[in-house]
Amino acid sequence: MLEPKCELLRSLHVPGSPLILPNAWDVASAKVVVAAGFPAVATTSGGVAASLGYEDHEAAPADEMFAAAGRIAAAIDVPVTVDSEAGYRMSPAELVDSLFQIGAAGCNLEDTDHSKSGLVDIDRHADRLGEIREAARARDYDLVINARIDVFLTDREKPQNEFLDQAVTRAHAYVSAGVDCVYPIFLFDEGTIAAFLKEIDAPVNILATPQAPSLSRLAELGVARVSYGSGIHHRLMDELKRVLAGIGPH
Amino acid sequence: MLEPKCELLRSLHVPGSPLILPNAWDVASAKVVVAAGFPAVATTSGGVAASLGYEDHEAAPADEMFAAAGRIAAAIDVPVTVDSEAGYRMSPAELVDSLFQIGAAGCNLEDTDHSKSGLVDIDRHADRLGEIREAARARDYDLVINARIDVFLTDREKPQNEFLDQAVTRAHAYVSAGVDCVYPIFLFDEGTIAAFLKEIDAPVNILATPQAPSLSRLAELGVARVSYGSGIHHRLMDELKRVLAGIGPH
Repeated sequence: MLEPKCELLRSLHVPGSPLILPNAWDVASAKVVVAAGFPAVATTSGGVAASLGYEDHEAAPADEMFAAAGRIAAAIDVPVTVDSEAGYRMSPAELVDSLFQIGAAGCNLEDTDHSKSGLVDIDRHADRLGEIREAARARDYDLVINARIDVFLTDREKPQNEFLDQAVTRAHAYVSAGVDCVYPIFLFDEGTIAAFLKEIDAPVNILATPQAPSLSRLAELGVARVSYGSGIHHRLMDELKRVLAGIGPH
Repeated sequence: MLEPKCELLRSLHVPGSPLILPNAWDVASAKVVVAAGFPAVATTSGGVAASLGYEDHEAAPADEMFAAAGRIAAAIDVPVTVDSEAGYRMSPAELVDSLFQIGAAGCNLEDTDHSKSGLVDIDRHADRLGEIREAARARDYDLVINARIDVFLTDREKPQNEFLDQAVTRAHAYVSAGVDCVYPIFLFDEGTIAAFLKEIDAPVNILATPQAPSLSRLAELGVARVSYGSGIHHRLMDELKRVLAGIGPH
């Protein structure tokens, strides 16, 4: 049954007591996340794509990405939220159908336009998010939608507060369109996080990075969800490099 | 082109200068193995199955296992040897065809009977290995066959030298059937390894475990191939547990 999982996943978004999501990339990693006591599992498109032999950013065929996420959802009992990138140019009905079929309780959708470098127009993206919400509602599927806001990725050198207005405007538009959570990925500056949270009356997801405030500080600030993106997969691949260096090919 | 890869993989089996195979389970791990300078990649059925959400020992559907191995072979340039478990009850022609289609330069085949606990009858298994060699030859496919000998798995408490005769008898039968390498898995006792090597006039694969002699000692003894089985996948999952313990679900 998917409905209780959607409900549970949504209820775990508590400002001040964030849902912590150490993103998984295959069934083995997802099972370790569950065994460690995490109440939900998020996938990382970067990790899933790497595991399947593709680059991130929709370089992998959608059906392979959904099949991998579906294997995870089928293998564990907790809610699974699927990194659906920008939705693979699928129609809202097709996307919702794919997520439902694989048993996703939630999804991430990003506002990067993978056909060019840059962001999707804000109104067009808000319309699309609204259509996805509507398509889910039409089939009684209470999908938890986490809308990624990619403005902080567009220039990683610029002071983050210069992007605040743009991020807030996008967040308002996406929340009005019916999403459950907004995710200004790569936002790590504490002052800008606090200012963003003050403006947004919906759960906010922050990416855990070395530059970001600690988990406890993020909680104090009122964050409702913290995810690790492809960070943990990268850490494990670095560990594999160390193990192999200790073996050596000869 | 598969033929040069078969030839290269076979040529890397040098007694005294063993081929070292830190087994991979997906494309990401295989790419790290290649980047570290290893000249070939072996898959681990345990790791591949775990990554896909199945138990080891042919609990996973053959097509999913071959698809995962095929993704690895398609993504890297070095020869790939595929852990084919006991061959998933496929006919020799079907098995060879599957291995060829996914671009496998070699394969492991084990003599455990997964329909019951215990080993396949030695003559029946030697016949099967000979039929697989014949099926490969019939299509000009110079598949490198590594015949696993599972006698040391049948009782892990017993002194290993008590299994020596049984292992040697099986090795002779499998080599006569045309395999390229024999693999007495879980054989770690140095004296028994030395005695086994003395009797076998073909490349021998030893599993690297904490109990086994060091890589340099295995080389001195005349081993031609050392593999890690699912050991490295397990190490990484242990590292993931440590990472998650440092995060905590709350």
